[in-house]
Amino acid sequence: QCDLTGWWENDLGSRMHVSDIDTQGNFSGEYHTAVSSAQKPIEPSPLIGSQHLDEDGQCTFGFTVNWKFSDSTAVFVGQCFAGDRGEEVLQTSWLLREKVDSLPNDWKATR
Amino acid sequence: QCDLTGWWENDLGSRMHVSDIDTQGNFSGEYHTAVSSAQKPIEPSPLIGSQHLDEDGQCTFGFTVNWKFSDSTAVFVGQCFAGDRGEEVLQTSWLLREKVDSLPNDWKATR
Amino acid sequence: QCDLTGWWENDLGSRMHVSDIDTQGNFSGEYHTAVSSAQKPIEPSPLIGSQHLDEDGQCTFGFTVNWKFSDSTAVFVGQCFAGDRGEEVLQTSWLLREKVDSLPNDWKATR
Amino acid sequence: QCDLTGWWENDLGSRMHVSDIDTQGNFSGEYHTAVSSAQKPIEPSPLIGSQHLDEDGQCTFGFTVNWKFSDSTAVFVGQCFAGDRGEEVLQTSWLLREKVDSLPNDWKATR
Repeated sequence: QCDLTGWWENDLGSRMHVSDIDTQGNFSGEYHTAVSSAQKPIEPSPLIGSQHLDEDGQCTFGFTVNWKFSDSTAVFVGQCFAGDRGEEVLQTSWLLREKVDSLPNDWKATR
Repeated sequence: QCDLTGWWENDLGSRMHVSDIDTQGNFSGEYHTAVSSAQKPIEPSPLIGSQHLDEDGQCTFGFTVNWKFSDSTAVFVGQCFAGDRGEEVLQTSWLLREKVDSLPNDWKATR
Repeated sequence: QCDLTGWWENDLGSRMHVSDIDTQGNFSGEYHTAVSSAQKPIEPSPLIGSQHLDEDGQCTFGFTVNWKFSDSTAVFVGQCFAGDRGEEVLQTSWLLREKVDSLPNDWKATR
Repeated sequence: QCDLTGWWENDLGSRMHVSDIDTQGNFSGEYHTAVSSAQKPIEPSPLIGSQHLDEDGQCTFGFTVNWKFSDSTAVFVGQCFAGDRGEEVLQTSWLLREKVDSLPNDWKATR
């Protein structure tokens, strides 16, 4: 029924752990990224987000990752699907906001 | 110093209220959207997210909105800037995930 | 050397044919989409675009598809990579612009 | 009636010139960007694209810019609207593809 709680891994090798979901659909967790555009060494970083609690269990969800090793923030939004063999599959899209020093550079801050 | 706490309004007339930020940078709040692609009437919806606590006060942040009136989830990511007259300006980008019924329709789920 | 000329197929089963590239890097072709958010039956639609002519052959490229069966336009941007077995792989991102009736609806026009 | 032919300027100060539109809706032109993420000096760069030829004149369109001063490609997609005082306004979204050296870096190539 699309329980996000637990460990997930994506195609790039990044892994995340999602804690218990509360009655509002809120959750927290930790994101272990395998890739980075920052200079400093990668560190596990906290995430916080929420999911819909739909009856059909194909819920949409979103979360924010507050990177510990850079002044950047990422958001992910997605949906849980039942895969061919009963396993759960998450499909997500993301945006990464990198800090820029002034408004005129805002156009290039997000990828 | 880029304190997200309080009320914000965007160009479309959507408004949001951000609660106090905790020591981790986490916050919650409520999003009152002025626009919607859903059928049902718009309702204020809860948001949850986090911001960087940088010394220079031009922090990046992100949050998730769990729409109460549709099976959709939105994420916003952005940065706080000091405007020309000392006021704070938020620059954000967003993704809206609409629930789709199966994986083959995943390609069109996000705008 | 990343010659875009010929037939390509993506994961969704959409296919495209790219014509000869001219000396400026411009090309035209036809896109046969397997998926659609429009009401009318799918038809092959013309595309036009250009690619970089780099020495290393891992060129970036972009093209516009002018859908024949809807008032929408799609753009694709990507890069050509050499795959594990010498074959060429295209990695692309896209935006689909659907016509909206007025500026206040502009926020939801692109996915 | 939403004739793209001519000069356009955006909020960032970038300017573009669009040539005559042919009977298929295809056009070419030149993009003079005011902003860049590349090292080399900015140069005017050729663009090529197409627009819908709708009766209501609020056409969608798209085009590709083949940057002369970097191994990058940008695509723009948008729609023409009549502004408050009868003038034409273009609303666009864009993707910028920067060349990356290998597939594992593909995740960060597009902003």
